[in-house]
Amino acid sequence: MAAVAAVSHLSNGELSTSAKPLNTGRFHSVYSEVQSSRLDHALPLPSVLRKPFQVVDGPPSSAAGNPDEIKKLFPYLFGQPSAVLVPGEAENVTKSLKVGVVLSGGQAPGGHNVISGIYDYLQDRCKGSTLYGFKGGPAGIMKCKYTVLNSEYIYPYRNQGGFDMICSGRDKIETPEQFKQAEETAIKLDLDGLVVIGGDDSNTNACLLAENFRSKNLKTRVIGCPKTIDGDLKCKEVPTSFGFDTACKIYAEMIGNVMVDARSTGKYYHFVRLMGRAASHITLECALQTHPNITLIGEEVAAKKQTLKNVTDYIADIISKRAELGYNYGVILIPEGLIDFIPEVQQLIAELNEILAHEVVDEAGVWKNKLTPQSLQLFELLPPAIQEQLMLERDPHGNVQVAKIETEKMLIQMVETELEHRRQAGSYKGQFKGQSHFFGYEGRCGLPSNFDSTYCYALGYGAGALLQSGKTGLISSVGNLAAPVEEWTVGGTALTSLMDVERRHGKFKPVIKKAMVELEGAPFKKFASLREDWAINNRYLSPGIIYFTA
Amino acid sequence: MAAVAAVSHLSNGELSTSAKPLNTGRFHSVYSEVQSSRLDHALPLPSVLRKPFQVVDGPPSSAAGNPDEIKKLFPYLFGQPSAVLVPGEAENVTKSLKVGVVLSGGQAPGGHNVISGIYDYLQDRCKGSTLYGFKGGPAGIMKCKYTVLNSEYIYPYRNQGGFDMICSGRDKIETPEQFKQAEETAIKLDLDGLVVIGGDDSNTNACLLAENFRSKNLKTRVIGCPKTIDGDLKCKEVPTSFGFDTACKIYAEMIGNVMVDARSTGKYYHFVRLMGRAASHITLECALQTHPNITLIGEEVAAKKQTLKNVTDYIADIISKRAELGYNYGVILIPEGLIDFIPEVQQLIAELNEILAHEVVDEAGVWKNKLTPQSLQLFELLPPAIQEQLMLERDPHGNVQVAKIETEKMLIQMVETELEHRRQAGSYKGQFKGQSHFFGYEGRCGLPSNFDSTYCYALGYGAGALLQSGKTGLISSVGNLAAPVEEWTVGGTALTSLMDVERRHGKFKPVIKKAMVELEGAPFKKFASLREDWAINNRYLSPGIIYFTA
Repeated sequence: MAAVAAVSHLSNGELSTSAKPLNTGRFHSVYSEVQSSRLDHALPLPSVLRKPFQVVDGPPSSAAGNPDEIKKLFPYLFGQPSAVLVPGEAENVTKSLKVGVVLSGGQAPGGHNVISGIYDYLQDRCKGSTLYGFKGGPAGIMKCKYTVLNSEYIYPYRNQGGFDMICSGRDKIETPEQFKQAEETAIKLDLDGLVVIGGDDSNTNACLLAENFRSKNLKTRVIGCPKTIDGDLKCKEVPTSFGFDTACKIYAEMIGNVMVDARSTGKYYHFVRLMGRAASHITLECALQTHPNITLIGEEVAAKKQTLKNVTDYIADIISKRAELGYNYGVILIPEGLIDFIPEVQQLIAELNEILAHEVVDEAGVWKNKLTPQSLQLFELLPPAIQEQLMLERDPHGNVQVAKIETEKMLIQMVETELEHRRQAGSYKGQFKGQSHFFGYEGRCGLPSNFDSTYCYALGYGAGALLQSGKTGLISSVGNLAAPVEEWTVGGTALTSLMDVERRHGKFKPVIKKAMVELEGAPFKKFASLREDWAINNRYLSPGIIYFTA
Repeated sequence: MAAVAAVSHLSNGELSTSAKPLNTGRFHSVYSEVQSSRLDHALPLPSVLRKPFQVVDGPPSSAAGNPDEIKKLFPYLFGQPSAVLVPGEAENVTKSLKVGVVLSGGQAPGGHNVISGIYDYLQDRCKGSTLYGFKGGPAGIMKCKYTVLNSEYIYPYRNQGGFDMICSGRDKIETPEQFKQAEETAIKLDLDGLVVIGGDDSNTNACLLAENFRSKNLKTRVIGCPKTIDGDLKCKEVPTSFGFDTACKIYAEMIGNVMVDARSTGKYYHFVRLMGRAASHITLECALQTHPNITLIGEEVAAKKQTLKNVTDYIADIISKRAELGYNYGVILIPEGLIDFIPEVQQLIAELNEILAHEVVDEAGVWKNKLTPQSLQLFELLPPAIQEQLMLERDPHGNVQVAKIETEKMLIQMVETELEHRRQAGSYKGQFKGQSHFFGYEGRCGLPSNFDSTYCYALGYGAGALLQSGKTGLISSVGNLAAPVEEWTVGGTALTSLMDVERRHGKFKPVIKKAMVELEGAPFKKFASLREDWAINNRYLSPGIIYFTA
């Protein structure tokens, strides 16, 4: 009944009275109605996980690139087959296990369900097992800081956003001392297995850990899980990383709202920066869900070797065209990492890093003489506030923190200047008002969508199965996701098969290549075929809120 | 089934294939599933509107202040009674009407439903009536720019966000020439009535228009409707303005997400600025819905005559306390208009307005000598970026645009500086990282909540009833909102009874006083009784998405 909704604001805050306090796990937490209702949302399993199954190995694997170097880096694990679960009676499986789990890096909706999946697998199939949750990311492994997870502890986190069950961290296990610490923890807890839930770096790290444990003859096996809202950790066997679905839906809801605002007011250009530093998947997916007037895709900007001036002109051209049609409003999507894709900006940043590390930056600007002519030209083109950000914001290594640069504001100012030139030249007669937005943190910790809830649960459940069957160095892989859940496939992909090497400080380092937006791929091609229509005609689509239909 | 959700991102953009194009009214629009599903959401009417009713007058009214001056400004309308609808047979009502409707000012979720309500009233009770939608706000009245609204045109906007059915505008009808234009339109269209959907200013304007029409012996009657997400247009008879409920729910969802982020990462203080320039209702309501660690309420800051330093210290004190408990994270809510409430800042801004209007602002800063010592001291205390904003951003009248000042960033910098002093003094040992957010436009145009959908429909339907019974100068008033919809009361309140005068340029001007947060009111007192607990213990509550339950 509609009146129920009214109560909350008429007696301000009444909403909270309907919230249930929960005295388990999520300490000090009260739950809203929506949160509570999600706790008992059913998590169906793929049918292969609901019956007895066997783990079947595929053919030997190679690497994504430079197999010889990968082989040198992973002498024990290189070439191992991927695995797939098929119906059948399992043989020689361990009866009970001691397993650790760790969350690594930034949050993504669904992380808690991966842990729930592992836990339920151990309960269902390996009675007497123990699940250790390492606290605060990989540092928790190194410091042996953990919580024993039981069902009372885990229950309040089912289908809930965030990583707060055991929290996350960005430390890496990479030096010999750090590997030693991880070994000590594995031995101390008598770990049979460890599940690392993380992005490309964390899964690379998981594989190094698996290799290391194997080389030391430790029994501890390591399985990775694909996590990142950015959607750039994926391959044939891992069709998506978890969190991407929910984050895009949250951003698309807000973009849809802003579109309605644009159309209603008729006087704002909303410049919306979206998370996604390395790849522009989020921006592309949100564009396909909402049909904005202008969308910048970093991979295309890079492929076309566009300059900042090109990008500005592209935006200004569409705005000018729209003004002629009487539209002085619009919505523009910008990937967070845009300027990383512009070669001339990268060059400028590299030069600035160098200058700021070694030179005195004087007020009068004499330091600018150290810039190459084209970098100086670009620097002078930038709005003063952006110049300042480039000079001031450095990370602990002295590098410019590109994430801190408010690209959407920079573009507003550059477009404004360009349109002013055009106005003076008589080629633009519209009105331009930019409004900047950054949609980021709001999307990382939302309640996971039904898809992410189910997908994560299957990833965790499958990771348990892989550990029980003695697998290591695999990433949990759940596929056939466009089919109903019962038909989803479950298995593990050799992490080494996703790897290539990069040369850093004169040494080869293994890396899982980030999956970038493919300009020949179906999503980009669909977008490219529609964007001219979206630019001029207003095809806005408001996805609205996530519907938690069963 | 969860798999359905997966489809959208696996075959990027598949969501849009489930969207229905609609060839009516909302031109060029495609609808998402959620938008489509809302179109046929039922809008129950209060029972008094479902049966024959009479309009009964109450006692004569006065004014909110300075009744003698209000009487002089509204000689025809002053003192008229408010009206209430009661069951019974109506007498002498007009059979068919020509009615205009206009949206005035910023969007608020539900505006389309007010129009739907007026339209349905005319269809149900005054067969043969015509509804004109004036386009682009009050300018549409003056220019006689309108659309004739029929059911095909209106249908696609039912329960949809935004104001794009007829769009809105911020023009005012205030000069004699403008009143003349409005009269011409009223005569040309033979208008029996006009409904003005707007905030305090627009409703004041509506009353002036009603007075003017009456003084000119025009038959055109004017009824206002209370619109503003800020929630500051309300009184005993008008318990809330529409849009507030939805906007707070959208913001509270995002705040809840950010809280989960804060708790998961454990290293950020999220400073969230929320819309609401004049009053802090949105901030207070969101606080009650989400339980943040720190909430600033402008009205309290003003009542306690706090300085910017006091506010900074208050935040720094809680952050220091939390650091001792091991919490280096938190969520802080800040009303958009905060600095308007700080007397010393208002003083500084007044001085700056004066200086910038008459003096040359030299690079060397000699102009600063024109500031009073305390304003200079405050100016020097401000972070450079804020100093710059204060100097650069001016509205067409040469005034500082306070809305452009990113208060949340200013506070982050000031708190950072303060904590650094404390660290050096040995009284703070924590880590501080601020993340800034502004939640604004996303909330103005969301899909209206069930409450706002129903409330707006009743406001519009009731406005139709008031016009039909010959009322003018009233604001549509729907009350008893905490009860089920059937028990809601319907009527109209004399706009003059909400008014006071302000002296501007030596003349009295009528104003509807903005309803501020009352420090003795129940919502603030509830908040005040809980905030110390919220500050130290983490009582975060994530309301999650708006559930469109039936």
